[in-house]
Amino acid sequence: MSAAPFAVWAPLPASVTLVVREIGETEGQKIPMRQAEEGWWEPDAPLPGGGRGELEYGYLLDGSDTVLADPRSRRQVDGVHGWSRTYDAASFAWTDDTWNGRQLAGSIIYELHVGTFTPDGTLDAAIGRLDHLVRLGVDFVELMPVNAFNGDHNWGYDGVLWYAVHEAYGGPAAYQRFVDACHGVGLGVIQDVVYNHLGPSGNYLPQFGPYLNEGGSNTWGDSPNLDGEDSDEVRRYIIDNAVMWLRDYHVDGLRLDAVHALHDTRATHLLEELSIETEALSAFVGRPLPLIAESDLNDPRLITAREGGGYGLTGQWNDDFHHALYVSLTGDTTGYYADFESLAALGKVFENGFFHDGTRSTFRGRTHGHPIDTLRTPTWRLVVCSDNHDQIGNRAAGERLSDKLSPQQQALAALVTLLSPFTPMIFMGEEWGASTPWRFFTSHPEPELAEAVRSGRLEEFAQMEWDVANVPDPQDDSTYQSSKLDWDELQQPVHADLLAQTEALIKIRRTYPDFTDPRFDQGRATSDDEGGWLLVQRGSMTLAVNFSDAATGVPVERPLEPVYVIGEAEVDGDLVRLGAHSALVARTP
Amino acid sequence: MSAAPFAVWAPLPASVTLVVREIGETEGQKIPMRQAEEGWWEPDAPLPGGGRGELEYGYLLDGSDTVLADPRSRRQVDGVHGWSRTYDAASFAWTDDTWNGRQLAGSIIYELHVGTFTPDGTLDAAIGRLDHLVRLGVDFVELMPVNAFNGDHNWGYDGVLWYAVHEAYGGPAAYQRFVDACHGVGLGVIQDVVYNHLGPSGNYLPQFGPYLNEGGSNTWGDSPNLDGEDSDEVRRYIIDNAVMWLRDYHVDGLRLDAVHALHDTRATHLLEELSIETEALSAFVGRPLPLIAESDLNDPRLITAREGGGYGLTGQWNDDFHHALYVSLTGDTTGYYADFESLAALGKVFENGFFHDGTRSTFRGRTHGHPIDTLRTPTWRLVVCSDNHDQIGNRAAGERLSDKLSPQQQALAALVTLLSPFTPMIFMGEEWGASTPWRFFTSHPEPELAEAVRSGRLEEFAQMEWDVANVPDPQDDSTYQSSKLDWDELQQPVHADLLAQTEALIKIRRTYPDFTDPRFDQGRATSDDEGGWLLVQRGSMTLAVNFSDAATGVPVERPLEPVYVIGEAEVDGDLVRLGAHSALVARTP
Repeated sequence: MSAAPFAVWAPLPASVTLVVREIGETEGQKIPMRQAEEGWWEPDAPLPGGGRGELEYGYLLDGSDTVLADPRSRRQVDGVHGWSRTYDAASFAWTDDTWNGRQLAGSIIYELHVGTFTPDGTLDAAIGRLDHLVRLGVDFVELMPVNAFNGDHNWGYDGVLWYAVHEAYGGPAAYQRFVDACHGVGLGVIQDVVYNHLGPSGNYLPQFGPYLNEGGSNTWGDSPNLDGEDSDEVRRYIIDNAVMWLRDYHVDGLRLDAVHALHDTRATHLLEELSIETEALSAFVGRPLPLIAESDLNDPRLITAREGGGYGLTGQWNDDFHHALYVSLTGDTTGYYADFESLAALGKVFENGFFHDGTRSTFRGRTHGHPIDTLRTPTWRLVVCSDNHDQIGNRAAGERLSDKLSPQQQALAALVTLLSPFTPMIFMGEEWGASTPWRFFTSHPEPELAEAVRSGRLEEFAQMEWDVANVPDPQDDSTYQSSKLDWDELQQPVHADLLAQTEALIKIRRTYPDFTDPRFDQGRATSDDEGGWLLVQRGSMTLAVNFSDAATGVPVERPLEPVYVIGEAEVDGDLVRLGAHSALVARTP
Repeated sequence: MSAAPFAVWAPLPASVTLVVREIGETEGQKIPMRQAEEGWWEPDAPLPGGGRGELEYGYLLDGSDTVLADPRSRRQVDGVHGWSRTYDAASFAWTDDTWNGRQLAGSIIYELHVGTFTPDGTLDAAIGRLDHLVRLGVDFVELMPVNAFNGDHNWGYDGVLWYAVHEAYGGPAAYQRFVDACHGVGLGVIQDVVYNHLGPSGNYLPQFGPYLNEGGSNTWGDSPNLDGEDSDEVRRYIIDNAVMWLRDYHVDGLRLDAVHALHDTRATHLLEELSIETEALSAFVGRPLPLIAESDLNDPRLITAREGGGYGLTGQWNDDFHHALYVSLTGDTTGYYADFESLAALGKVFENGFFHDGTRSTFRGRTHGHPIDTLRTPTWRLVVCSDNHDQIGNRAAGERLSDKLSPQQQALAALVTLLSPFTPMIFMGEEWGASTPWRFFTSHPEPELAEAVRSGRLEEFAQMEWDVANVPDPQDDSTYQSSKLDWDELQQPVHADLLAQTEALIKIRRTYPDFTDPRFDQGRATSDDEGGWLLVQRGSMTLAVNFSDAATGVPVERPLEPVYVIGEAEVDGDLVRLGAHSALVARTP
């Protein structure tokens, strides 16, 4: 690539002109560009003020007079259709010199959407709530995508300018303040990044070059061109973006959205290349830089160390855990939940990581997955949750588990997740059983697009035979506003109680090493569908959970000393008696 | 094992009696012990004061009236032949809550012997010098063994009570203060531990149980019983000791002394078991816990991740690097240096890690080593140095490289080590070219043992046909005193200059990512024995080093911008002109 200021990769147009203006000006100065190597263009005339200082700029392709944003723009003050603005990331005065990063092993993640975490919906407002996260006891904040997207608010997965921090969140400077503040209170930051598609509006990349693999689209749009002609630069575009977050913004790890939607036939898969480059960066910055994939492939290759022939990602989300736990809690066996009907599914996940490890997936109409090498793979490579932005937001009305479950059942969900041997993740508000929904919301300014999103959403649910009357309009501002956390709920005893239980469970996790022990073979799970119970033993620790709404008895083979109880639990000789929706955490002396 | 207070593993004696006394008392109270499971004994009567508070204690075996120290003693106030003293490690008020540990990747290690680092020779005195290490820019302090050994001073490898911190260093409380202070200034602590033999005096373990594999001794004594009868508890003794440092004393990593001297035929080698247990602990404490082996096996299995079928140690010392560099600097090709005569040996190490990777070792009279999988193994797994306690101390008079090399040559040594892709290690004082020797010293109080050590040392060197008149008496106090660093040297320009160069080289390492890039295949080395030069290219960085005492010219194939010069260096077209003992660090734009 070219290192010249304002250089741009644009192998498609026959001519590229740079336009630059001072902040506040309306007219830009046109600077002709000359072709450099490998599709790059460089300014061919002096820049105003030598190109230093804050400037607005954009590109005119093939003599057009439409100013297009820089594909690597750091700021889009007027949105994704507007001019780009320079931002000098090196100018920030970091205060995190003594921060050595955080390893994924042993950690707990807190997933957070900037726009709805606080009433203000900004990164600076989020800083004001970090003390809550520290008290809760989590290690990483995982920010849902902050890249520039169309409109004011959005989940973030419709990003089109991956290098820019969404202006309504506060832009790149606020982002740096946020990361610095997190490090100051001992929290790592994981950034959710989307490399599998671009949003439906503001994506001008195809005019610059073959960024997209137009033959191979996925659910959300065209997937990136990772293995076609000119794909070296497209891969570089992705990897440089990852490096930007980790190096320039001091981010501690990345969550890679839906990697199963990446199409790459190369001998070195993009994910392995990303691992390699991230390992090199990690050695340079002296901090662990975990990469966590969202994957529905159930393919252990992703999380196997490169020394073991894998791609070398640090971890991946494990949907099987969610599905098995969700079915255990709710009894819902519709759609892809069907295979998880028996509590043995949750038990299998505890023992083997994946439920679908070569077994038949009814939903997919084929066998699915591959077994994890449980003797060598650490349990913490799997990130698990009882709810997350996708599970909640993709329900018709964006209702959380709290909408379906009693507080006591929510405590069961927290117990099974937080005392699992995996890496637990909490979705913001879940720790107190937030009653606010978390809905699918968009804010596309274009009426046609707004209507397309609105009707598309309805169609989707109509196909699933849901009552579409309950589906909120994604474009309605109240859909967004109603998704914001209501922090005043914490004043109510029921929410304060649930928060106290979540905090207690996190403390228990950190008190008894058996819970974080990464050896699969240290755990054994049994269950009984009729009795409605699951029994998990890890080392000297035991979890006995009654998911059913009737009292039950769990046979145990060793003496138990109660450590924590949800609902009613009693050790009676060789039996643990559990009330409805109750659980016991115990240790064997 | 038994969790009872004062329990002891002693499968050999037919009876065990505990003796306990308050501090200051001379007589102890005898407490009978009863056999518990698997060779463990537990007190069979109430303990004075309930066994709480600080107490002195020991064991009488088979009716003997000789009080033996606890094999797991935490303190030996009166030396290894005296009574044990209880120490409550949990009582320390740690201030390192926000410390997340340190990863080995990208780090620099500083090896330090507590007794000779400062005039006082204590851990508390060492705390007073941490600012020097922070300014220098290292990441880890590696403490030579601090376990209890016979006498007042010693290198530490003659330890006999592995759980006790040597009292003359300040004991366990001072140790905790030291680790806490290191964390406070951002330094990690690696503890050197010796599990391959026990020292010649104060080793009463064989009276308790079959700790030693008496059939299979190594250079230094009987090796531990890792695979014979009752070896489960011996392995537990070792692993629990590792856990003690990492958990109770907040240590950040271990250096495992001479692992090639461990004899273990089990399917799971002790080193793999140690990796597994350390990984579990790491997930519990949420900190990376690197394990670094000293190994002369050149066997990549040690440092291959468990997911790749290896033992899963984090790193190992790479003697080949030292030997190749030493020969390049000194021209000495005696003994095991013979194979490293050509500069191509150093080049091979840069490209492949091991020089002996299946090649013939003249010194060993056989082929030696196995190639590293350079496409998958990160370079930082190899710890390298130009001098260390062994290389210095095992020379007859304990002379450092500074004794043989000019300051400019010492700067070359620093450059090649600190800008290598491996994990550099500095031996205390090397950063300023300390002129003080670092000798082999002991302080055995027993005259016979003192004489044996003295004459053994002379014999050893006589066999190598050295002039034994130059070999200092290990037992002479002046041998110890003369080995202490002379910090006043830093006032002399020659030493201050060398320190400034070391600091500058560390800054260069941290400025250009190519130096820490862990990919072997990013590096290429060429050399010319006649011209006396080595050329290393890593990414966009180039090192050109002239080891010879004549000016030389190094042909280069790309444009170079000088970044750092030692001696005289000049880029002249396709040639780098180097003065005698000179070097150039350069980058290609």
